[in-house]
Amino acid sequence: MSKQGILFVVTGPSGVGKGTVLTKVRERKELYFSISATTRKPREGEQDGVHYYFLTKEQFEQKVAEGGFLEHAQFSGNYYGTPAEPVDRQLKEGKDILLEIEVQGAMQVRENRPDAVRIFLAPPSFAELEKRLTGRGTEDAEAIRLRLETAKHELTLAPQFDYIVVNNTVEQAVSDVLAIMQAEACRAARTQID
Amino acid sequence: MSKQGILFVVTGPSGVGKGTVLTKVRERKELYFSISATTRKPREGEQDGVHYYFLTKEQFEQKVAEGGFLEHAQFSGNYYGTPAEPVDRQLKEGKDILLEIEVQGAMQVRENRPDAVRIFLAPPSFAELEKRLTGRGTEDAEAIRLRLETAKHELTLAPQFDYIVVNNTVEQAVSDVLAIMQAEACRAARTQID
Repeated sequence: MSKQGILFVVTGPSGVGKGTVLTKVRERKELYFSISATTRKPREGEQDGVHYYFLTKEQFEQKVAEGGFLEHAQFSGNYYGTPAEPVDRQLKEGKDILLEIEVQGAMQVRENRPDAVRIFLAPPSFAELEKRLTGRGTEDAEAIRLRLETAKHELTLAPQFDYIVVNNTVEQAVSDVLAIMQAEACRAARTQID
Repeated sequence: MSKQGILFVVTGPSGVGKGTVLTKVRERKELYFSISATTRKPREGEQDGVHYYFLTKEQFEQKVAEGGFLEHAQFSGNYYGTPAEPVDRQLKEGKDILLEIEVQGAMQVRENRPDAVRIFLAPPSFAELEKRLTGRGTEDAEAIRLRLETAKHELTLAPQFDYIVVNNTVEQAVSDVLAIMQAEACRAARTQID
């Protein structure tokens, strides 16, 4: 029995704690990641195929036209995207993959790969997210206001995901994400009886 | 936010180890159970509403007609069934319920309660199940042959369940069942963001 890997997509609003939670998840479970493609210029020390796949605007748009991305978006005049081919190849090899992407990108993945398992990491409450973003103290009031406005919209999209993990405490959220990964491996559609 | 409980249904062929696995699951998670109804006569010491709800054939058939059972079946001329009302009441109170029932009954629950989470406990292989049933040494060859024939048919129904947990080792199976329960509590359809 050759088992296909599972594609996990984790998203959530800015400030919810995705990075902290997923770093701990990776410490406890082997998960492959994908290298994004971008049209922005490489920064000092960045290597093609390691930090990013660096593409020209034309190459990127060609790849979009061919359906070569699981998701893509434009930020500050540059394209960013998740190339489909390396992900599909690793899944075929039986490797589980974890994509950490922003909410709109995660919505696109569902259309392109309906069998992806999509997890939305949510704050305990909107007030709590506000507190966390303000508490960072690294941004001005206007930047925080914009992030909160985006977050408010993103939270309305949460019910469209497969799972909602509320980040009450990091340990609970990590435990929930790991449980989801273990449970999904038991899905009848993915299990074959000898 | 008042959270509805989750109805978990665990089934699997005779000899697969349901009892052992579920006893350990109950040690690690609070799960309510349901009391079955039956038309067979109470045995010495059995109390109505504790061990079973004892009904007459007429009462049972009336209840079937009213849709009062989540599942029911006939064995050796007696009816057995899971009354819907106590289950639905406990779910409404936010209690998670674990029903351990045979395969045909578990199939019926899906029709009556499509939101039930149905787990099929499977042996690592058919040969292994054969070994376990024969190893018990409590039954004659013909009884074992009949059990294996039933098991073979039941295994073909496993893909119709939500999850298949392979009972390779008790600890792994217990861990998988608990992970499924934890993950299902994170299902977007069951989670509400404040």
